[in-house]
Amino acid sequence: MTVRIGVIGTGMIGRDHTRRIAQVLAGAEIVALSDYSPEAAEKAKADFAPGATVFATGEELIASSEVDAVLVCSTGSTHEAYVLAAIAAGKPCFCEKPLATTAEGAKRIVDAEVADGRRLVQVGFMRRYDAGYRMLKRVVDEEIGTPLMVHAAHRNPSVPESYVTPMAIHDTMIHEIDVLRWLLDDDYVSAQVVYPKASKHSHAKLADPQIVLLETAKGVRIDVEIFVNCRYGYDIQCEIVGEEGLARLPEPMAVTRRLDAKLATPILTDWKDRFVASYDVELQDFIEAAAKGTASGPSSWDGYVAAITSDACVEAQEAEGRIVPISLPQRPSLYA
Amino acid sequence: MTVRIGVIGTGMIGRDHTRRIAQVLAGAEIVALSDYSPEAAEKAKADFAPGATVFATGEELIASSEVDAVLVCSTGSTHEAYVLAAIAAGKPCFCEKPLATTAEGAKRIVDAEVADGRRLVQVGFMRRYDAGYRMLKRVVDEEIGTPLMVHAAHRNPSVPESYVTPMAIHDTMIHEIDVLRWLLDDDYVSAQVVYPKASKHSHAKLADPQIVLLETAKGVRIDVEIFVNCRYGYDIQCEIVGEEGLARLPEPMAVTRRLDAKLATPILTDWKDRFVASYDVELQDFIEAAAKGTASGPSSWDGYVAAITSDACVEAQEAEGRIVPISLPQRPSLYA
Amino acid sequence: MTVRIGVIGTGMIGRDHTRRIAQVLAGAEIVALSDYSPEAAEKAKADFAPGATVFATGEELIASSEVDAVLVCSTGSTHEAYVLAAIAAGKPCFCEKPLATTAEGAKRIVDAEVADGRRLVQVGFMRRYDAGYRMLKRVVDEEIGTPLMVHAAHRNPSVPESYVTPMAIHDTMIHEIDVLRWLLDDDYVSAQVVYPKASKHSHAKLADPQIVLLETAKGVRIDVEIFVNCRYGYDIQCEIVGEEGLARLPEPMAVTRRLDAKLATPILTDWKDRFVASYDVELQDFIEAAAKGTASGPSSWDGYVAAITSDACVEAQEAEGRIVPISLPQRPSLYA
Amino acid sequence: MTVRIGVIGTGMIGRDHTRRIAQVLAGAEIVALSDYSPEAAEKAKADFAPGATVFATGEELIASSEVDAVLVCSTGSTHEAYVLAAIAAGKPCFCEKPLATTAEGAKRIVDAEVADGRRLVQVGFMRRYDAGYRMLKRVVDEEIGTPLMVHAAHRNPSVPESYVTPMAIHDTMIHEIDVLRWLLDDDYVSAQVVYPKASKHSHAKLADPQIVLLETAKGVRIDVEIFVNCRYGYDIQCEIVGEEGLARLPEPMAVTRRLDAKLATPILTDWKDRFVASYDVELQDFIEAAAKGTASGPSSWDGYVAAITSDACVEAQEAEGRIVPISLPQRPSLYA
Repeated sequence: MTVRIGVIGTGMIGRDHTRRIAQVLAGAEIVALSDYSPEAAEKAKADFAPGATVFATGEELIASSEVDAVLVCSTGSTHEAYVLAAIAAGKPCFCEKPLATTAEGAKRIVDAEVADGRRLVQVGFMRRYDAGYRMLKRVVDEEIGTPLMVHAAHRNPSVPESYVTPMAIHDTMIHEIDVLRWLLDDDYVSAQVVYPKASKHSHAKLADPQIVLLETAKGVRIDVEIFVNCRYGYDIQCEIVGEEGLARLPEPMAVTRRLDAKLATPILTDWKDRFVASYDVELQDFIEAAAKGTASGPSSWDGYVAAITSDACVEAQEAEGRIVPISLPQRPSLYA
Repeated sequence: MTVRIGVIGTGMIGRDHTRRIAQVLAGAEIVALSDYSPEAAEKAKADFAPGATVFATGEELIASSEVDAVLVCSTGSTHEAYVLAAIAAGKPCFCEKPLATTAEGAKRIVDAEVADGRRLVQVGFMRRYDAGYRMLKRVVDEEIGTPLMVHAAHRNPSVPESYVTPMAIHDTMIHEIDVLRWLLDDDYVSAQVVYPKASKHSHAKLADPQIVLLETAKGVRIDVEIFVNCRYGYDIQCEIVGEEGLARLPEPMAVTRRLDAKLATPILTDWKDRFVASYDVELQDFIEAAAKGTASGPSSWDGYVAAITSDACVEAQEAEGRIVPISLPQRPSLYA
Repeated sequence: MTVRIGVIGTGMIGRDHTRRIAQVLAGAEIVALSDYSPEAAEKAKADFAPGATVFATGEELIASSEVDAVLVCSTGSTHEAYVLAAIAAGKPCFCEKPLATTAEGAKRIVDAEVADGRRLVQVGFMRRYDAGYRMLKRVVDEEIGTPLMVHAAHRNPSVPESYVTPMAIHDTMIHEIDVLRWLLDDDYVSAQVVYPKASKHSHAKLADPQIVLLETAKGVRIDVEIFVNCRYGYDIQCEIVGEEGLARLPEPMAVTRRLDAKLATPILTDWKDRFVASYDVELQDFIEAAAKGTASGPSSWDGYVAAITSDACVEAQEAEGRIVPISLPQRPSLYA
Repeated sequence: MTVRIGVIGTGMIGRDHTRRIAQVLAGAEIVALSDYSPEAAEKAKADFAPGATVFATGEELIASSEVDAVLVCSTGSTHEAYVLAAIAAGKPCFCEKPLATTAEGAKRIVDAEVADGRRLVQVGFMRRYDAGYRMLKRVVDEEIGTPLMVHAAHRNPSVPESYVTPMAIHDTMIHEIDVLRWLLDDDYVSAQVVYPKASKHSHAKLADPQIVLLETAKGVRIDVEIFVNCRYGYDIQCEIVGEEGLARLPEPMAVTRRLDAKLATPILTDWKDRFVASYDVELQDFIEAAAKGTASGPSSWDGYVAAITSDACVEAQEAEGRIVPISLPQRPSLYA
């Protein structure tokens, strides 16, 4: 069967997902589009899905009998309502992060999905689909013994002035929060933030870099360096230390040069290039589950836990040096 | 439009391409299958393409008005006839290597395609679609100056007793013959083969390792080590030395471990894993060109040149140490 | 001139330094030896310095007019008295770590040296002489901008049961404490220790691994993983993140192998192999300064600061999670 | 005992060896100096060996009863006579390469040493003392099985116009000729040279790059790329392929940087930095053997074989593409 997909929000990421489903992936077609700006929806239709219907609202798109499954790619504040509507309609729903702008909102989605009794929501934590992280998970699971420590870094060459301190958690660290839980099969119990001397390349409203220290239920200690004006490149590092040895996330594949007295490989500078291949895998996974009327991959629960953890990290930012406890509700059996 | 594809030959690679087109790639569907063993074709139909028609012969499949484009994945000796039939039918045709079992056969295909006046044939030299080789080509074209030398190696852990000396050229070196021409945008003018001491892990009918030395029209000197009982892994190395610097084919992405007193990354041992991702890209390229009624990528001409070069290398094997000239006919403008 | 050296303590390290001065380095000779066990001193004499005099006590050796400079390699509890005696005698003195067993003892040495008015003491922090750390310091000083963060690790394959929690500071971390101050040209202002889940390969009296978090006067944040039952090897890691980029301590030079499906370099397992070359450089530096009647390299002040910092780290171990302030007295101008 | 050394030739390398023996190494002193330019000898005396005697001629220096052992560092054409004089005087003699300017001259030295009945000559092939090559030899001997192939490169950023084609053998490849024989414990039986397109950075009298193909008595095939205007750095590569796996010469130790969108280590550009540490080891070995009245390390025989092999390689240069046989006389038992 071909899954008939409707896309809500055809801005940068939604437009790209539309292209992906129409031109790259198998098993689905774009049948419906909707955007706050009807022109954007019409343009996506013209470019990638000439047969699709453009709906005036996301709600109408979700309700359409032509639509089997929904992609929510609109602005973050609208996610919760669309996802709840998709659950109410019994339709599989892929939601870009954040699942909701508050932990409470995410909880409402979890509650609705649990009440419905089956998984319908996949959250867009694409790193779980990255080939490098998948290789790393296999090695962590099989070769290095019980994980004890994680040393990670999330570096970006620069950020605009609109990027302020809490965004280091909500927009940046959020990826580490999700992917490290998944790598370790574990949850967080505390967070602490310390601030090194600020880089002169940062600005007044952003403490940069930051170091976030997390502790997990199983006793793993994690340090994550967040440095979003690091200048030299977009660089994601992750090293897991286990009882028997250590494993490190692969660098992106690159040609080694010997040039100008240097033995060098390039480092990416645009974050969009780093995990671009994982979007294909992520959506293919969504399509395959949607064909069966369900969802897999990162769940509403994962989105909810990420929201709770993010809130604790922001609290830890505000109370520099203080260890902030993180407590989670019982995990519903739907997400076991 | 969706390209309707017929697959001739549903053995290992044909069956895998059937799955790929049915389940992974966009823009095409499998509508026809044919195999020497009707059971194999029926099984591919059942597994991947329930709506497809199974034809008794490749010729009938090619002739069917349901079929827009053809994949020739049958045994090598049948390739020439099927490709000629596809050209005669005016249908885009992807042909697994070899294009023909002799240079003369390949020439007949070139002549037919030239007479027809448009490209219809893509040969299955998948390395040109490998992400690593593509990165390498970009660096060779842009960063290291005029290429002067290439140091390459093609190593395999072991081969069965049925693999005899000339197969080191026809089955193994053939990939380097094509991909190095493409990387350098050049052609060969001579070949020489020298034999190191044979590995004790080889057998009586196989001189292993071998070193093939090629010279190009632009004066590039190439050494290719072929070592198919190297024991340690399947390992493809390629280093291009230019006037300003050097570039090296990336190693496959891998997790670095620190374990057991070693800092190590794994080396693949199964050749099928090395270029698996490039099959997807190769066939997607075929589908996109076929949708326009033509073909792109490695051409009949490339298949023909590879055949001529292989023949010269085999002659050089037989006359160890002697430099064997390679001369090519004029390149038809269709392949300019 | 040839510096006439007396060695107090001819156990493992003292005996090795005796050999080094007698057989490897230029500009000095061993003229005097002393050890708690006269047999050990006689054996060192027989093996490396047949012309040397064996003294019954370190004090007599220091007092001898034949001796220009002294190496203190005896057990730690005796260091302070010998170093003070050497200062009193006006003789350059190389003292293996610790300079003294308490910060107060180290302070007495600093006071004596300051009262004397010239540097006479070099402490055996050999990492400052390691070629890798020296390369790293050059890059930190010149290329990566102002340092903001340090990520370090000190790993050992295993330790005996006699190695208990505080030794992770006094015997292990002590090297990082000194070398990071030197790399950064900075001092510490606070320490915090957190404990990951303990490795099953540790024992009851040792919390292993540990993470020590240091903050410097200039605002650099340092995390040091100490993991002395890491199993896989003796591994020293140091990564400095600056405002413009990042520099990493070189791995020890090693042959890359492709063997058994692995691309690997060996990791050392015996700590004695890791910095062995730096002992030569360290003592050559001592000899050259001693020839001029003074000392260079790591000073009494460095030894004293290391002692104060170690004490704070042990306090931080005992109060897991609490941030312990570190305050240093004014640095005497002798050590500016 | 302290070996009393006389140095003939106090130009760049002779002056540096004088410093090395006077200030760095143990067990020897410089007692005599001689140079074509008496001022150079006097300057070396003033700078490093105030107690040394300056002799008017090398012959007088060799004859002096104050001199136990001799370093021949004068211009190449004078080596043979000085080495023969040292043998006649029964004094250990370290001779910078070349041992003689012709194979016949080297043979006269071998004959004289054999007639004398003991080893007195060490030739300055310092790569055998390089830590990287020593590590590589251990791995070749113990881990990778019987060697079958060697891929090597000797690259230099640029050479002056005075460097002409045969110097690629006599001045550059000579090091590979010696060190590969030693690594493989083998001798050469043929040589072939092929010329890639010349780099535009070369000049009229120099074919650059060149590829030298050697075959050994045990059947190992060696390719050595010589590229002395490679622009990017001074770079020595050596990869040995054995029956079980592969080993590669370590890169010089270097700090890894992440800077300016590159993950890079520096490549040396000055050849003098590449093997500088091996000069210390080489001369220490000479001193230790000289103290016993003999010599070890690279022998006259090795110098002679290098000369014969070089001559064959130059012949192969002149007859591009032709395989030139190399035949050696019987190895005297003194060099077994």
